[in-house]
Amino acid sequence: MSTPAPDVVRSAYAQLAVTDLAKARWFWVDMLGFHVQYENADSLYLRGTDELTHHSLVLRKGDIAALDHLSYRVRTTEDVDKAEKFFTELGRPVKRLKKGEGTVGVGDAVRVVDPLGFPVEFFHEIERGERLIQRYDLHRGAQIARLDHFNICTPDIPAAYAHYRSLGFGCSETIEGDEHELYAAWMYRKQTVHDVAFTGGAGPRLHHLGVATHESHQVLRTADIFGALHEEKHIERGPGRHGVSNAFYVYLRDPDGHRVEIYTSDYYTGDPDHETYRWNVHDDRRRDFWGNAVIESWYKEATPVLDLDGRQQPVSSSLLDESAVQVGADGLG
Amino acid sequence: MSTPAPDVVRSAYAQLAVTDLAKARWFWVDMLGFHVQYENADSLYLRGTDELTHHSLVLRKGDIAALDHLSYRVRTTEDVDKAEKFFTELGRPVKRLKKGEGTVGVGDAVRVVDPLGFPVEFFHEIERGERLIQRYDLHRGAQIARLDHFNICTPDIPAAYAHYRSLGFGCSETIEGDEHELYAAWMYRKQTVHDVAFTGGAGPRLHHLGVATHESHQVLRTADIFGALHEEKHIERGPGRHGVSNAFYVYLRDPDGHRVEIYTSDYYTGDPDHETYRWNVHDDRRRDFWGNAVIESWYKEATPVLDLDGRQQPVSSSLLDESAVQVGADGLG
Amino acid sequence: MSTPAPDVVRSAYAQLAVTDLAKARWFWVDMLGFHVQYENADSLYLRGTDELTHHSLVLRKGDIAALDHLSYRVRTTEDVDKAEKFFTELGRPVKRLKKGEGTVGVGDAVRVVDPLGFPVEFFHEIERGERLIQRYDLHRGAQIARLDHFNICTPDIPAAYAHYRSLGFGCSETIEGDEHELYAAWMYRKQTVHDVAFTGGAGPRLHHLGVATHESHQVLRTADIFGALHEEKHIERGPGRHGVSNAFYVYLRDPDGHRVEIYTSDYYTGDPDHETYRWNVHDDRRRDFWGNAVIESWYKEATPVLDLDGRQQPVSSSLLDESAVQVGADGLG
Amino acid sequence: MSTPAPDVVRSAYAQLAVTDLAKARWFWVDMLGFHVQYENADSLYLRGTDELTHHSLVLRKGDIAALDHLSYRVRTTEDVDKAEKFFTELGRPVKRLKKGEGTVGVGDAVRVVDPLGFPVEFFHEIERGERLIQRYDLHRGAQIARLDHFNICTPDIPAAYAHYRSLGFGCSETIEGDEHELYAAWMYRKQTVHDVAFTGGAGPRLHHLGVATHESHQVLRTADIFGALHEEKHIERGPGRHGVSNAFYVYLRDPDGHRVEIYTSDYYTGDPDHETYRWNVHDDRRRDFWGNAVIESWYKEATPVLDLDGRQQPVSSSLLDESAVQVGADGLG
Repeated sequence: MSTPAPDVVRSAYAQLAVTDLAKARWFWVDMLGFHVQYENADSLYLRGTDELTHHSLVLRKGDIAALDHLSYRVRTTEDVDKAEKFFTELGRPVKRLKKGEGTVGVGDAVRVVDPLGFPVEFFHEIERGERLIQRYDLHRGAQIARLDHFNICTPDIPAAYAHYRSLGFGCSETIEGDEHELYAAWMYRKQTVHDVAFTGGAGPRLHHLGVATHESHQVLRTADIFGALHEEKHIERGPGRHGVSNAFYVYLRDPDGHRVEIYTSDYYTGDPDHETYRWNVHDDRRRDFWGNAVIESWYKEATPVLDLDGRQQPVSSSLLDESAVQVGADGLG
Repeated sequence: MSTPAPDVVRSAYAQLAVTDLAKARWFWVDMLGFHVQYENADSLYLRGTDELTHHSLVLRKGDIAALDHLSYRVRTTEDVDKAEKFFTELGRPVKRLKKGEGTVGVGDAVRVVDPLGFPVEFFHEIERGERLIQRYDLHRGAQIARLDHFNICTPDIPAAYAHYRSLGFGCSETIEGDEHELYAAWMYRKQTVHDVAFTGGAGPRLHHLGVATHESHQVLRTADIFGALHEEKHIERGPGRHGVSNAFYVYLRDPDGHRVEIYTSDYYTGDPDHETYRWNVHDDRRRDFWGNAVIESWYKEATPVLDLDGRQQPVSSSLLDESAVQVGADGLG
Repeated sequence: MSTPAPDVVRSAYAQLAVTDLAKARWFWVDMLGFHVQYENADSLYLRGTDELTHHSLVLRKGDIAALDHLSYRVRTTEDVDKAEKFFTELGRPVKRLKKGEGTVGVGDAVRVVDPLGFPVEFFHEIERGERLIQRYDLHRGAQIARLDHFNICTPDIPAAYAHYRSLGFGCSETIEGDEHELYAAWMYRKQTVHDVAFTGGAGPRLHHLGVATHESHQVLRTADIFGALHEEKHIERGPGRHGVSNAFYVYLRDPDGHRVEIYTSDYYTGDPDHETYRWNVHDDRRRDFWGNAVIESWYKEATPVLDLDGRQQPVSSSLLDESAVQVGADGLG
Repeated sequence: MSTPAPDVVRSAYAQLAVTDLAKARWFWVDMLGFHVQYENADSLYLRGTDELTHHSLVLRKGDIAALDHLSYRVRTTEDVDKAEKFFTELGRPVKRLKKGEGTVGVGDAVRVVDPLGFPVEFFHEIERGERLIQRYDLHRGAQIARLDHFNICTPDIPAAYAHYRSLGFGCSETIEGDEHELYAAWMYRKQTVHDVAFTGGAGPRLHHLGVATHESHQVLRTADIFGALHEEKHIERGPGRHGVSNAFYVYLRDPDGHRVEIYTSDYYTGDPDHETYRWNVHDDRRRDFWGNAVIESWYKEATPVLDLDGRQQPVSSSLLDESAVQVGADGLG
């Protein structure tokens, strides 16, 4: 394709529809420690305490639990125009939003349904938030520092990989079969392991949001707080060490079932010749470095996504099923 | 019974028979970081780096993997005599060992088969080891500080409870059914949650040895090192937070299948009126505070025990089966 | 002396006079995370979240900042009588308090001025508090688990040592000169490094209260929270690693100048033949294992103590001055 | 200037002359845990265990302790040419090194004496090293993950700032006087707080190398290991929390006096409009967030630098002296 891709800086925010805003606030603000930057009758605008832009998560009251859109920040205002042209040329639905028409705090933006069926926004301008990095007195709960990545379910991993390559993303790690068939991939623009990753499965659906803390003990404390309140049902998987990315994690489900990963300590990927690290699907350390089994719901359940008019997108089935691979403790057959 | 019980100070050491001493050395010394205090052709005498007595673990080359004996330190030399009388009066097998006849480094001792069928030793005198508490340069692997407790499988938990009460042990925590039928109990002499605990199941068998580290990150590092060497099969359960005891743990299996718990951070129990904390068997946080399922092997598998002549003891079945209780993610039915 | 000593279980609580109860509450409750068990117009009764008895710290509104009394729990009610006789025979001031006459929550007690000039209480009976060990949702600030020890300034260390030996205390560590002259000592009844320690200096004065957390990162977080609020003036010394006790620490000063040590991770001392570990006063690791200098105020400043009628006790000068020993970075000449 | 600057990716490695290679090996390899990638009779090539390129530190046997050169990786081979032109046009000494003529493992490179008097190299091509990120079994000592930054002493901070701006560096933080006179600045290309920082003082001298670990407990362990071996003299300052950068640190001196900072946990700076955070020189939290004093040697001592022919560079005095600012505990007047 001749149209140049926008210069994506990083995964910037996600907007989720939640069915009970009070319950969502308990989970994301009281328990996880997100900072409330702005709120109105039907929305909460949240950020982690390391983040200097207006929000990294918007929770909107909705009739069904769903993903409104994922949003990437681009380098310049011109890159917003480039994004519009790029997806128009691909024949995808595209919607331009002037400052004030879209999400609070965000300037001029373009929203598209990408070739994978996901609602995705690109913007450059965003309001700043007061620096809270050293306001340790305000760090509570899981002490979330920042959004780290999006993880999406899609039936055709090679297609997802090709699409994000065309947007200039590098690939840090993959899970592959013996014939190098692609089961999963982790792709980045910022200098971490990923801004977006693909989990094979029926899609388009949102698998999870990954949010970062600084140290492992904060992940443990997150789980402890849920146990303390006898709300351990929100803990779906972990804590554990990922083989892929090497990060220490715990997966939680919010009151609507949206999945979030508390994630700490991956590695630098900013060198120009950074090589992809390839895991074989039969290595039982790929999903948990300690060989612990992956719970079935983690592979099977995910959040539906909306189109640009707020209608739920239909879902296609997966081509390859990683969870069907019988590996040590991890087989779910 | 009129015979006074010996004044037990603490769980002091365990002696395990292992079938391959080199493999056992790799696991306990290289990976877990036990300090080798003494060794000869067929034995290793090990201790944690906080321990000031000669050993807390003896590994003996044997034909089958088994427990030789558990050993408690008593307050005075007279308490060794009291132990001899106490178990003689109970009609149990008793064997007196003068200094030099028994375990290296240990003085005058008495060994018995206790009413639960376990080979147990009582001694007072033991050689000292050089202080390694602050030899951080020698702390490696799991950085084991000290032995914490024994956990034994026995079919009749109330009988085990009564026996250890008669030896003056306090009870910190229990797991109980709705009618207060006892599924498990944690009992102590030193001022921690336990020196010995009982897991319901076929017995007498050794469920595990519990060894202490100072902080949670040392437990995580233990698991990471096994993953690094693709030896994650040695990780059986966890890391996780216990409901009972509140400690952070990981369970490993040594090359012979002996189970060890790396355990950190329980609480003080030294007050004279310390109350027992009772968990209901239907609380899915009792075994894992985060509600994670307990793997079946953890309930079912254990180490056989020998009698005073080194013959394997027969095993009786359990009266109550905690693993059959269907609770949340933890049901194994 | 023929009178038997009371059987002391542990250091149990301290009562401090503070000049501004609201400011003291900010420091001890909001910042350090003590749990408010009970309060009335002029007092706060606080405990750490691992503690199961009514309080370990009482803050009383007073005209001057001072120590009201230190308090030890004894094993039985008879030991309260023994304490009364023991100090009466020593010719010290003694005051008996029936339940309801003394501190809220505490039963029958005896208060004395001990031979070192300190106001000290002995009691057995105390109300219980709800178990908060696993209420991680309530753990905040420094996440104080429990009182660990008292540290007192006294001019005659050998006299202090002899007095506490007569009360049955063991000695875990000392700082000694080349001729074994005693500069400082750490003494215990519970199975930790100490319940009480002596710092050479003008006395009787309270050097500090030591309160325990579970892990090092909680000590770091404590310091971070004070920095965040630009209240770093409350941080007097550390964080650092002690040579003596091996614990990781930070020393803070409350709004009245009372010193508190946040302290984590010492070692087990419960064996009957536990040996004293002796530091030479010229080893610059004794006070800070990393050789960092001790700030002069830490040696020189302390809290005055009251007598049984609430009058401030006069102070005598020290016989030996550890801070005058010129050692590496630690010399204060 | 019209000549375009090379596109710098990150600070890549430093080459130090050490007077005793065996002692240097003890410090950097045994104690800090650097991995030896390559060695010959007079040099050690080291990297951290997260690093995927050949080395981040070269230790060369020399007659005096000095900095041979700092080295930045650039994005393409053309950027090496750009660097040559850029510094030639500035009238600075420039030396081109073909692959094999310079440092082992590095391809075509250019070395210059920059306008601040520092020997600096720019290269693109470098050999890869085996992935050790998850070889936890090989992580030892300080468990260094990667080089983080260079910190240089220079008498004219505004000139240093202007030079690195001309090379395309962003500025994350500064220390400034009341009239915004610049005392210190932190500048970056990769998405962390810095690749290079400037400490006001006689220069050109190397203040320190900053090397990263993942978590705070690894910094504490580093200090503990030095204390354990009674080598605490190598600990110069800290551990502590920086105000600037928010990182947790300890400063060590190697056997030749070269200073290294063990550094953990700063924050993301990759957004295109990342704002500079400005500290006032009178805020005593700027250098230590807890208000602890900075030791005088840390301000005054540094490593001399060599020119392109290996001769020691002369040093000019500082224009502004931050250490003369009397602030709380931090005044050194």
